[in-house]
Amino acid sequence: MTLLSALAGDPEIESLLSDAAQLDAMLAFERALAEASADTGWISEEAAAAIGKAIEDFTPDWPVLEAGMAQDGVVVPALVKQLKADLAEPHRTVLHKGATSQDVTDTALMLQLAGIFVVYEARLTAVIDQLDALSKEHGTRELMAHTRMQVALPTTWAAKLASWSEPLRRQLQSIASLRRSLLVIQLGGPVGDRSSFGELGDAIAARMAKRLDLGLATPWQATRDPIIALGSLLTQVTGALGKLGVDVTLLAQNEVAAVRLAGGGGSSAMAHKSNPVNAEVLVALARANAGLSGTLAQAQLHENERSGAAWTLEWLTLPSMLINTGASLRLAQKLLDQLRLD
Amino acid sequence: MTLLSALAGDPEIESLLSDAAQLDAMLAFERALAEASADTGWISEEAAAAIGKAIEDFTPDWPVLEAGMAQDGVVVPALVKQLKADLAEPHRTVLHKGATSQDVTDTALMLQLAGIFVVYEARLTAVIDQLDALSKEHGTRELMAHTRMQVALPTTWAAKLASWSEPLRRQLQSIASLRRSLLVIQLGGPVGDRSSFGELGDAIAARMAKRLDLGLATPWQATRDPIIALGSLLTQVTGALGKLGVDVTLLAQNEVAAVRLAGGGGSSAMAHKSNPVNAEVLVALARANAGLSGTLAQAQLHENERSGAAWTLEWLTLPSMLINTGASLRLAQKLLDQLRLD
Amino acid sequence: MTLLSALAGDPEIESLLSDAAQLDAMLAFERALAEASADTGWISEEAAAAIGKAIEDFTPDWPVLEAGMAQDGVVVPALVKQLKADLAEPHRTVLHKGATSQDVTDTALMLQLAGIFVVYEARLTAVIDQLDALSKEHGTRELMAHTRMQVALPTTWAAKLASWSEPLRRQLQSIASLRRSLLVIQLGGPVGDRSSFGELGDAIAARMAKRLDLGLATPWQATRDPIIALGSLLTQVTGALGKLGVDVTLLAQNEVAAVRLAGGGGSSAMAHKSNPVNAEVLVALARANAGLSGTLAQAQLHENERSGAAWTLEWLTLPSMLINTGASLRLAQKLLDQLRLD
Amino acid sequence: MTLLSALAGDPEIESLLSDAAQLDAMLAFERALAEASADTGWISEEAAAAIGKAIEDFTPDWPVLEAGMAQDGVVVPALVKQLKADLAEPHRTVLHKGATSQDVTDTALMLQLAGIFVVYEARLTAVIDQLDALSKEHGTRELMAHTRMQVALPTTWAAKLASWSEPLRRQLQSIASLRRSLLVIQLGGPVGDRSSFGELGDAIAARMAKRLDLGLATPWQATRDPIIALGSLLTQVTGALGKLGVDVTLLAQNEVAAVRLAGGGGSSAMAHKSNPVNAEVLVALARANAGLSGTLAQAQLHENERSGAAWTLEWLTLPSMLINTGASLRLAQKLLDQLRLD
Repeated sequence: MTLLSALAGDPEIESLLSDAAQLDAMLAFERALAEASADTGWISEEAAAAIGKAIEDFTPDWPVLEAGMAQDGVVVPALVKQLKADLAEPHRTVLHKGATSQDVTDTALMLQLAGIFVVYEARLTAVIDQLDALSKEHGTRELMAHTRMQVALPTTWAAKLASWSEPLRRQLQSIASLRRSLLVIQLGGPVGDRSSFGELGDAIAARMAKRLDLGLATPWQATRDPIIALGSLLTQVTGALGKLGVDVTLLAQNEVAAVRLAGGGGSSAMAHKSNPVNAEVLVALARANAGLSGTLAQAQLHENERSGAAWTLEWLTLPSMLINTGASLRLAQKLLDQLRLD
Repeated sequence: MTLLSALAGDPEIESLLSDAAQLDAMLAFERALAEASADTGWISEEAAAAIGKAIEDFTPDWPVLEAGMAQDGVVVPALVKQLKADLAEPHRTVLHKGATSQDVTDTALMLQLAGIFVVYEARLTAVIDQLDALSKEHGTRELMAHTRMQVALPTTWAAKLASWSEPLRRQLQSIASLRRSLLVIQLGGPVGDRSSFGELGDAIAARMAKRLDLGLATPWQATRDPIIALGSLLTQVTGALGKLGVDVTLLAQNEVAAVRLAGGGGSSAMAHKSNPVNAEVLVALARANAGLSGTLAQAQLHENERSGAAWTLEWLTLPSMLINTGASLRLAQKLLDQLRLD
Repeated sequence: MTLLSALAGDPEIESLLSDAAQLDAMLAFERALAEASADTGWISEEAAAAIGKAIEDFTPDWPVLEAGMAQDGVVVPALVKQLKADLAEPHRTVLHKGATSQDVTDTALMLQLAGIFVVYEARLTAVIDQLDALSKEHGTRELMAHTRMQVALPTTWAAKLASWSEPLRRQLQSIASLRRSLLVIQLGGPVGDRSSFGELGDAIAARMAKRLDLGLATPWQATRDPIIALGSLLTQVTGALGKLGVDVTLLAQNEVAAVRLAGGGGSSAMAHKSNPVNAEVLVALARANAGLSGTLAQAQLHENERSGAAWTLEWLTLPSMLINTGASLRLAQKLLDQLRLD
Repeated sequence: MTLLSALAGDPEIESLLSDAAQLDAMLAFERALAEASADTGWISEEAAAAIGKAIEDFTPDWPVLEAGMAQDGVVVPALVKQLKADLAEPHRTVLHKGATSQDVTDTALMLQLAGIFVVYEARLTAVIDQLDALSKEHGTRELMAHTRMQVALPTTWAAKLASWSEPLRRQLQSIASLRRSLLVIQLGGPVGDRSSFGELGDAIAARMAKRLDLGLATPWQATRDPIIALGSLLTQVTGALGKLGVDVTLLAQNEVAAVRLAGGGGSSAMAHKSNPVNAEVLVALARANAGLSGTLAQAQLHENERSGAAWTLEWLTLPSMLINTGASLRLAQKLLDQLRLD
């Protein structure tokens, strides 16, 4: 649904979450695993080189990958099979050695998130800068405050703008903090205890993390509270921007007219309308993410060492939240460009 | 994300919700409006014919429609403008006369839902038939019942299968009932009271409903409880199939072995695994829809005569629910095909 | 928290959901079961009379019931034990004969809901009457419509008031319909197939339903879609009233002043304020119920013949929704009493 | 509903959230405000002493406070009025001088949370200790791992127990971190910019924070992302314990028998049952909190300087989450006491 995406989506984040981007991240995992395995003697240097070469030359057969996804519930078995077809023995056997599908999928997600965080940080910084510039220009001007939907007493634009920017400053810090606590590798093997790597599991994990520029962590396949925390942060971002959206729709009411919007949305029936479309979409995205964060939290309840149901629920939820967050930041910039305080 | 869609999506429902399908439904609205308007003398017969011809020959300029969607928050202003470019005066002026964007968008949704309900009914019937066939063959056999996750006392497969099929029978009836109560036209004009059609509003609405094979209703642009009821029904369907999924994952446990699954999902690390992938995805879809139904219900709170924020939230929620429901029915058929009770 | 309840609760519904009310309903179940069992020869007439007498004279030992609830996850085993202590053999043995805890608990809920529906219907009718009276007095007056938070074109108060009352009329009908589809007995025995009653299960169920003035249904202990449908209806009621609340907060803004509220809420710091407290609480209750309806829908996923987890989740959710709905209807009446259109 | 509370509630947390506890915290605010105001010369030392004395001697008139809550949407105006009745001029006028209801309510919540965090920390530590003790005794023993609801390969109890305790260790740290970022005073005055205190606002705030042993922060009345973050943490705690609950219900299945539960719940119909009641309730509480966290996040969208609707929604949500979290920690201890690994 490209039309809806044009309104409320985000091409850049959607691209970072595309099948192609995921596949690239999965191949990066397999390469880093092979290299780390060679470093520790788990596989030979020749095997690692052959695997690296096969990955470099790899062309995915997408329909087969899709069929594998539908059959296995994860794409990794089909992907590994395709990759192995490009490798001769003895190297074929050692591709993916010791690892399991979840190691690939979860680590790939972390690599994708690393890229997404860069976008978020840039956009958060841009929005904060816009708000700071408005405050610099208009901060001392008076603005009527409204509490409980009634006129209260005068305040200043500086106070209003601070109420919009302060949460974003906190969230920018939280992303930096999540970089350390969330962006870690997953390496556990079939049952998540690294026993499939003999004694070498921790050593391979450490080297793999370094090669992928991710943090090191014990396996977390069934303990996904950091993912829930991510969902909450995304919701806090869209919530902060949704609050901005609410305020703008209220302040831009014709009867209030505390702000104007340059280039508002048109109506098919009323030529005089200038609808606060971007502000409205900020509200919608905030409410959508709030709901999705509750659903994502349901996915914390993994059964035993790995839950296909909970994991799939995470996939049905988190990407939408990431896109909503990107869209919200994108539209906040547009809205602030439109905003006229005089 | 085609990979995820291959696992947990539904090509048929996705197609019925595509931009192209929505545009077709919107054009059907404009044609029916023109014809009904001509019937009542609101516009001329010649104008209606010219509009019908323009719609027949219409080729959308998608990038422009996308830009319009982003600008106006609805695609209709841009669409009407494109259509008008294909019409000469005096007919140009009377295209869309008296109507507003929401009339087009909401009525188009109803037309799309009518098609989606056909798919649902066929699939619900097929799943019920599968369950009935299993009951006919295995109903008298004994099965150990489990309550509160503990062995209880023996019951029969007939009782188990009935617990799976009874909700689906109810839901099949509910869809029939929703056909009457939900699948109605929207025609209200700019502020939703049909005053833009002078005295002819009700007459045009009645004729338009007949031509579109939809029910007649007073304008409902800001009173969307029937949409919330639809969301609940979708959730009840996926909930019933999610409960089937939960049961199958439990009964197919190696230690319980009350059922087997032919052709379960494979693992990249454990060749002996036969994962109940389709059952797991049923659980995930049920939980996703449950959460989305709560979010959709937030969209009932429209501000005044039309809320862009609430409406956009509906769009961010309902299509996913419709696809999830289709996918759940699709996968339930697959799962029951796999299911071996002996 | 009585303070919060004074603002956003409902003493009448809270009372109908109290422990005492639940216990009364559970005792009504045991009495009706005994009588229906005697009707069909499942137990003796003498036993039924003795059980009836014991129930009449019964004084619960609450601390023991609470301890039983904590131990067993349902209060019924402790309650049956207390009741049995008041009975001599041979009648003692046949109390509760063939039934299980869930039969008691679920049927008791239905009896409680029957009483709650009476309250809802009276209040819905009262609110609709208030709106009709306002329409009769002010319907022809003009009101500026607002779409997408911007001034649109004039409409009438009749149209506005109809947009508030129409959903409530639908919901009044839906409650009548739920009386038939939802308010049914639960009688299934330990594994929910009535096999514990030998051949007499259906006959006992039919007689029990008649005595309790509830509908007859096959056991539904693990197929709870009608409960989910109830949750949705409650949410549609609070959503409709929440939309009324949103509109009132917008129309009562000082800058808009399309309505006034007599006796608005005061502020501890600003003597001039007249806050639209009741309207605000309607919004809060609507959003709370919307969220809870999504959580309730998670409870449709029972494991096998009975899920303690799903059942408990229902208990953690549905009572709050019922109280929120009652509170919303209570406050809507107050708000409409306050509302001045001139 | 004391019965449900006996199963799934928490007397200790309920007490810390009672009306009486809230009132105590509100009085502590007023006293600290008076003292800090005297420190800075905003009011006289005599006034502060008189206010402190009045608070010490204060006996609330609860029915009047309830009526005030219903009237004003917050209890503070009625409370301040009652307090003032105990004070003579000139001190009467300076009680609450410069502050607003939200300052009192939000700061009181922070004081209550400080006490609740102490309970949480003690219980989290106790649960972690139980898990560590189990690991010390049984860690090296083998346990069959299950992935995607199928037998996988053997792992160790140490790995299983670590998967239960690791999230709790993270959450214990997060509580410590929230102490700093969340537990701060609210002092903003009517419109939230401290302008009601002239030039003395920041100085009074600093002194008040010190006296209340809370952090200092700029006013945050309409920027409530830290509350959303708290909701997420609560959900992560109940989610981690819900995952423990899921695992125990699965491992304690009769057919699996990897663990036993001493003293499971009884059935009214099947004497042989030993139901994993505490584990089930952990699952229910986790799902309830997950849903509530999504609703709480809806309350981030405050309108302008203060939203009665959003604030009330927070009150309808957060206390339940705090109680659910306490109950979950309480029941986890009980469950681990029951757990037999041999």
